[in-house]
Formats: sequence, C-alpha cells, structure tokens
Amino acid sequence: MIISLKLQRGGPETLQRQVFVQIRNQILDGWLTPGLEIPASRTLAAEYGISRNTVVQAYEWLSSEGYIEANKGVGTIVSRTLPEASLYVGRTNEKLTNSRTPAAPKVPVVFKGRTPRLPDRTVRQAVDFWPGRPNSRHFPATFFKKAVDEHLGFSTMALSEYGDVAGLPALRSAIADQLKASRGISVGLDQIIVTAGIQEALNLISRLFVEAGTKVVVENPCYQGAALAFESYGAQLVPVGVDREGTTVEQLRGVSASLAYVTPSHQFPTGATLTIERRLKLLEWAQATGAYIVEDDYDSDYQYSGPPMIALAGLDNSRSVIYLGTFSKSIGAGLRTGYMVLPPQLVDHARKVKSLMNYGHPWLEQMVLADFLATGSFQRHLRRIRRSYAAVRDCLIDGLRSGFGEPDIRGAANGMHVMWRLPPGFPDPETLVAQVHEFGVEIYTLAGAGAVDFGSPYAADSILLGYSSLTEDEVKKGVRAIGRAVEAIGNHPVSGRKSWSGDPQHAGANR
Amino acid sequence: MIISLKLQRGGPETLQRQVFVQIRNQILDGWLTPGLEIPASRTLAAEYGISRNTVVQAYEWLSSEGYIEANKGVGTIVSRTLPEASLYVGRTNEKLTNSRTPAAPKVPVVFKGRTPRLPDRTVRQAVDFWPGRPNSRHFPATFFKKAVDEHLGFSTMALSEYGDVAGLPALRSAIADQLKASRGISVGLDQIIVTAGIQEALNLISRLFVEAGTKVVVENPCYQGAALAFESYGAQLVPVGVDREGTTVEQLRGVSASLAYVTPSHQFPTGATLTIERRLKLLEWAQATGAYIVEDDYDSDYQYSGPPMIALAGLDNSRSVIYLGTFSKSIGAGLRTGYMVLPPQLVDHARKVKSLMNYGHPWLEQMVLADFLATGSFQRHLRRIRRSYAAVRDCLIDGLRSGFGEPDIRGAANGMHVMWRLPPGFPDPETLVAQVHEFGVEIYTLAGAGAVDFGSPYAADSILLGYSSLTEDEVKKGVRAIGRAVEAIGNHPVSGRKSWSGDPQHAGANR
Repeated sequence: MIISLKLQRGGPETLQRQVFVQIRNQILDGWLTPGLEIPASRTLAAEYGISRNTVVQAYEWLSSEGYIEANKGVGTIVSRTLPEASLYVGRTNEKLTNSRTPAAPKVPVVFKGRTPRLPDRTVRQAVDFWPGRPNSRHFPATFFKKAVDEHLGFSTMALSEYGDVAGLPALRSAIADQLKASRGISVGLDQIIVTAGIQEALNLISRLFVEAGTKVVVENPCYQGAALAFESYGAQLVPVGVDREGTTVEQLRGVSASLAYVTPSHQFPTGATLTIERRLKLLEWAQATGAYIVEDDYDSDYQYSGPPMIALAGLDNSRSVIYLGTFSKSIGAGLRTGYMVLPPQLVDHARKVKSLMNYGHPWLEQMVLADFLATGSFQRHLRRIRRSYAAVRDCLIDGLRSGFGEPDIRGAANGMHVMWRLPPGFPDPETLVAQVHEFGVEIYTLAGAGAVDFGSPYAADSILLGYSSLTEDEVKKGVRAIGRAVEAIGNHPVSGRKSWSGDPQHAGANR
Repeated sequence: MIISLKLQRGGPETLQRQVFVQIRNQILDGWLTPGLEIPASRTLAAEYGISRNTVVQAYEWLSSEGYIEANKGVGTIVSRTLPEASLYVGRTNEKLTNSRTPAAPKVPVVFKGRTPRLPDRTVRQAVDFWPGRPNSRHFPATFFKKAVDEHLGFSTMALSEYGDVAGLPALRSAIADQLKASRGISVGLDQIIVTAGIQEALNLISRLFVEAGTKVVVENPCYQGAALAFESYGAQLVPVGVDREGTTVEQLRGVSASLAYVTPSHQFPTGATLTIERRLKLLEWAQATGAYIVEDDYDSDYQYSGPPMIALAGLDNSRSVIYLGTFSKSIGAGLRTGYMVLPPQLVDHARKVKSLMNYGHPWLEQMVLADFLATGSFQRHLRRIRRSYAAVRDCLIDGLRSGFGEPDIRGAANGMHVMWRLPPGFPDPETLVAQVHEFGVEIYTLAGAGAVDFGSPYAADSILLGYSSLTEDEVKKGVRAIGRAVEAIGNHPVSGRKSWSGDPQHAGANR
C-alpha cells in the first residue's frame, strides 16, 4: 500500500508530527481503509530518507490513539474499529482537488453503435441450442498443454517481445496450406493477418473502407456482429434477400456499394449454401462495380456430405474478395483467434490498421495453433468432431421428424446449426422459445441467436437450433421439451407432412 | 485438395469422360498445380456419388496423357512436368468469371491513419537499447507452463466458449487488488476491461470520444502509438510541452478539449514524473472543462527509489480519469494483455465498444495472469526484476559518466529507459545513432524510438536508451560503441562536466 507523504524539513512541525498527522488524516479521510497493511517503519523511513525512530514515534502515537494496530503475522494495519472522529471527516481527495471548481458536464460519448445481443449466461438452461458452439469435450487440451510446455521450455522471446503485427509467420504459413487444401484458396502468408476472431477483422475492414454513408451490402437476415460493426462506423446497410440457393445476388444488379458482406458456405442464420452460379455472378458484380466482397466463412470446417464448394476467394481473379476464417468454431471461441486473407493491394493498408489497433495478436495461441495445423493434428481433430456432430445432427432431425412430422430444416448439410421453419399451427417462435425455456431447454429465435432481420420471411416462422455442443441425449431432451411446450401452449401440432404440404415455401432440398 | 466437378448424368458425355476432361482442364488452367496430391479414386467417387470404376478410368486416362502420376507413399499427384499444351491455356478461373466484364477500379481505401514506426528487426544489432523491453530471461515460464497444465486439466470450457467481453472476472479482480496496493486506485472489477495492450484501449477510447475535429491534448513529445491512434479517428491534436516536472499543465488554461492523453509516471519519451501539484491542476482542469484524462501508466511497475506517487486515477474524484495499464512491460509484450479502468459512467459504453471490436480477450493469457497476480507471484517477480534493472541502469549511468563526464540523464528514477541529453560538442542524434549502429549497437533518437515530436527542445539533442533487456556487459559494450562513434565522427567530446556547465538547460535533478 502506498502512503504518500509530503514532509517539510526544518519547518515549524517536527518530522514525526508531520508523519503522524498526515497518516491520521489519510485514515480519517477513508483513503487508508480499515484492515489495510501499512508499511513497516523501516520501509517508510527508507522511502522518505528519514530516521527510523521518527517513523516509530509517529506509529506509536497512531497506535495509542487507535488509528493503527499490530496484527500478528501481517504487521501493522489500519484499525478495523476507528475512533469516532472518522465519522465526521470527508475523504482526502475531495480536499486535494479544489472543491470550489465548478464541475462541468463530462464530454459526451460520440459512439453511436448498438450492442450485439449476447445470451445472458446466467439465465441459460443446461440444454442449450445456442448456435456455433464447439463441444468442449473435444477440446485438444493434451496437445495444448504439451505445446505450451515445449515452447516455453525452448524460448520465451516471443512472449517477451512484440512480434509481427500480422501474426506469427509459422501460423500464417500453416493457415495458407490449410486454405489451399480445404477451401481452394491459393495465397502466400503475406496476404494473411491473424485477428482476434472474425469480429476484429470486420473492424479492420470497416476502418479501411467505411465512413459515414458508405454503402455496405448485407444479407437479410444477417449476422448481427457484422451488421452492427459496419453500422457503428457509419455504413448505410443495403440488405439483400436469402433463399435456398443463398444470397439472391441477382438483386445486386444496379447496386453500387463499397462492400458486400456474405456467408456463402452456410448463410447465417438460414444455413443456405451459395450456388456456384451465384458465386460467379457475385464475383462479376464485384469486378464490374469495383466493390469488395467480404466472405465470412465462419463454420466451413463442417461439411458433412457432398463435394466441398470452392470458396469465393478461391474463384476470385479480380482481387475483389477479403476472406475471413476463425478457429472459434473448430477449436474454441476462447482462443479468440481468427484470420483474414487479403488481396495483395490491400495488405499494406491492413497491416497499418492492425498496428494501430493493437500491434498484433497474443503469441501463446498462435504458437500452439501453428503446431496444431502443421502436424496434421487439426485435420484429425476436424475429422473426429465432424463425425460426432453429424451424429448429433441426425439425432436432432430424426427427433423432430418423429415428434412433428417431416421437418423443413435448412442448412443441415454443413455447419453447426440448422434453421427449422416451424410447421403451420405451431406457436410463433418467441412464444415457443419462452415456453421451452420453462422446461429447461434453450432454443432461439433468429433475433435471439444473433441475427438482424430487415423484414425477411424467416423471422416469423423459424427457430435456430445449434446442435454441435450437445450430446444425443441432450438433443432428445430438447426435442421432448419442444413437444411439451407446444402442448402447453395449447396448439397441438398436426403430425405428418400433409399439414404443410400446401405451402410450397416450406418444401425444399435441404431436408 | 478440392477437386470441384460438375457432372451431368444421362447427358451426351459419359461420366468418366466428364471427370477426365474437367480434371485435365483444371490442371491445364493451373488451378491444380504440379505436385499437388489429388484425392484417392475411392474418395472422389464417394464425394460425387459415382462408381469408383468411373474415377479409376478417368485417372488412367489422365495418367497415360501425363497429367497425373503415382507418387510412392503419397498417392497420386499432379505431374511435376506437364504436357506442353499447358503452356498455351489460361487459368480456369479467368474463364469462370466473365472476362468480358470490364473491371472497374476498386473502391479506394478511406483509412487516413499513419503507420506507427516499429524497428525493423531484421537490421537491429545484437546490443539493442530499444526502450520498454523486459528481459526475456526473467519471463516466468515455469509458472506459465504449470498454470496452463493445471487449468487445461481442469476444464476447457473457457477456451471453448465466449466469455465476458470485459475479461475474465478473476483477472479483473486481481488487477483491482494490485491497483489498490501499488497505484492507490480503488475500483471494483466492473470498472476494469482487459484489452489487447494499451494500444487497443486507445482505440476503444477513440471510438467513444473521437470524431473528425475532436480536440485531444497530447504531450510534446508524445508516444506515437497514442498520437497516431487518435489522429486516425480524425482527432485534432493539441500538443502541450514537457519539462522536468512533467507535462506543463499550466498551458491547458483556456484550452477546451475532449481528452488529454498523459504519461504521468514516466513521461514518454522524456522520463519526467508529473509532480503532485501538476497532477492536481490537471484534475482541476478536467473537472472544470468536462474533459477526460487518459492516464497511460505503461511502465509504472518500475519505481526504483523515492515514495511511489499515487496515480491520477487514484486522486480523481470527479470521474474524469481513464487509466491504462499493461503487462507488456512487466512480463512480456507477446502476451498482448493490458487493461483499462473506467469511471463508472463509461463502463456500459466501453463494454459495448469492446463487444463490437472483438468480443473479448483470449482466455489462456488471462487465466495464467489471474493466478500469477492472485498468488503474489507477480509481486515477487516485480521485486526481482526491479533489482536487476536497477543494477543495469546504474551500470549504464556509471558508464556514461566515466566515458563522457556527468551526464544529463532524465527519467532514471523509474521506468525502463532514460533520455540522455547529449553533451555540447556531440554529433547530432541521427548521426550518432547511425554511427553507433556501425559498431554493432542500436541506440535511438526520440523519433526512432517511437515518439512524435511537435517541435520540442529534446529531439535535437537527446537519445533514448532502454536498458531493461540488456546485461551489464552489453551495456558496457554499448557505451564503448558510443565512445568509438563519437571519435569516428571526429568530434571528440570534452570530458568532465565543465564542458556544458554553462548551459542551465542541461543541469537538473534527474541525474
């Protein structure tokens, strides 16, 4: 604890008196609080270059008046029961600054952004269909422990010093290899910047391109973290619809914008995969207008069936695509580690912004991830969890089918969640979610799961079910809770597909 | 590797012919590059739901025409020597997108910020007086390894999931305790946000308060990371001078600004400590004008002598101070972990910005640091390295004294670097730095060490010497190199104090 004294030598007051008065006042003022340890007399004397006897004398006065007391083992502390006088004295610092200075109102906050909706963990139920959560049982803890042990045994230089603002070269190189093999993207490590998740990359992009009034195309419905980030920098959002074939890029004809933000692998929240025809159309639009495409490939590690689709960034030959990836979905969000792949002409600009933002990403995560990828352990990890998640997904779809008839499920071929368009006669999503919560299970409306809706057809009849973090038993419990909730609300669903076969909106390929 | 095929069943071409043509074209187009492994026939067949024999046939054709070859141990790869035809064919993706689409110029980057100057590590000499580097030999690697091992053995939930955007509560609580004991700041953990170093905190503050034309008071000279961050958001910088008593806050009379950025413990770069009188004046100014003070306490962990001074945030009773701390200087910059302490009225705003920026800091560093602080290991670590750095600092000052007479050294009482005002007759700082580099040692001009100068008296006659990462032998080598450089430049310094005793500017308390 600091005791700050201002001692005057050769003045009218003795030094011991000055020490006594000033410490007493700091105790009375509440600056030194009851129970706080005060420095040993030797220490205080050395700090102020005064004799130890001076301090000892001052401490004796303080002790005899009840301000401080000896405390076995700890040393001397401020008394837990102070003299009555303490009740009548204000705090020192109220006297330190001139209380006659009129206090002006503080300058206002100019930030206009809105807060992303994050689930309140304190009220979430045990069985939780929150989308995009990897199962923590699959976290490669053994690999992490071993890698940290080895690296820190070898050298701590990387932890002591600033590194490359763009990230650890070994990790960026491993990411480049991984992108080539799994996403068809061929880039050098210089084009890769490691970021604190995709969210930081969205900020970096916003700083590069967005100012008040900048047009940014977003999907409708859209991942809120992206929409709110762009908006917070002043962007004017231009929503474009989403159907079974992904973002309806046909609507972009005639649209002029700086950026188009898309989630082609597994549209968030609807789960649609952008067709190859639309991918090419989107790239053509970017080429023709000069816009950049921001490809958010958040959960592309989970492709359960069918041939993998090459990423937009892999098809791009006009240097129009900024690709965003993350380890939040494949390993864990607590790593806060993602990356962006930039067209060559943006690399220097992006490095500059990253420097000003935070001088680069923490090293520990990067070192471990570099090893994890380079040794092939990441690929093995993905194969293992893909199998596991696919089984849970099957269990979920089977459960919904046997409980409520053939379900209209979107986005089951890949990713970590599905969108379920509720059968006719079901309660509305908000009511259903609230009732299911009462039965110990969390399911989500689109808005509740972090999607922004600009008037899409899905908000009114769909819920989001993230299955990746759950066991099959938990999924079964979840489906039962949905059934009980529907009953409790009093609208019994008609089972069997006939009930909604008249609605072509609800039939489709994704089932 | 992805092979993306588009197969038409029942069309005029057989499936094996389609597979052959499409793979051949992708090789010719350079999409599939020489040496690349292609999927096993079984795998490709399964992915596209076609018979394995179909793929085997297609592969045989490709092999006989020299496009692919068997490679022992690896499988089948794209041939390293391709048929001549490959020289005459463009890349597939140039045909995928419509090459007749005229390419518009890409939208311009609107970011106007300048890049912070960071030393080019590839040309830095072995003995490097770069300021603010902790000595990596003191990195608490054993503690880190043990803590990671224990935590990951216990639970990986924190790594699998998103956590509190403001940071791990255990770490924030430990930081609050530490601030109370060592900096006289009394706050609850709710007022603390863990950030990616002080740099991220400066961005967060900028997003809260800075828009085009916002006035921000900075020190002259000033830490460039701060000045450039504010500037990049449009701030109009208002420089205020620095003398031996720190920032000349008297100059603030009549100044109206939203923020005042200061480094009171150890002004960067001059090393001055802000006096208590000026601290109170600065707080009064903030109270009277409504401005916020940003207190950057980057290296306050190193107080070598004299009583520690209470931080501005500890004296503040008008909720005007935003305090910034970091573990970059006490443990290592590779952790990229710092924190900010906010007045209560700004907490919600700041959490919102932090959410949008990156959803919070990586967990591994936070878990370990929480333990490191809570167990008292951090305090022990600090005591150990303080002793070590003080000895190196003494060695440096002794060396300068015996080599060049009594030096005018600023900022030796605390921190990790000193500013040395060169004696009269010495070469100018740039010339000296360049010549010393030739002798295998890096010393720094103020600008070279990351300070922005708005016309201060120091840039022309001072150099910065960061000593904390060096051994005493390295420091001696550095001092010798300075001596040799001065000789080589041909201006022999006059030894002894008489040579500059006539210049009162160069005499002072900090020596």
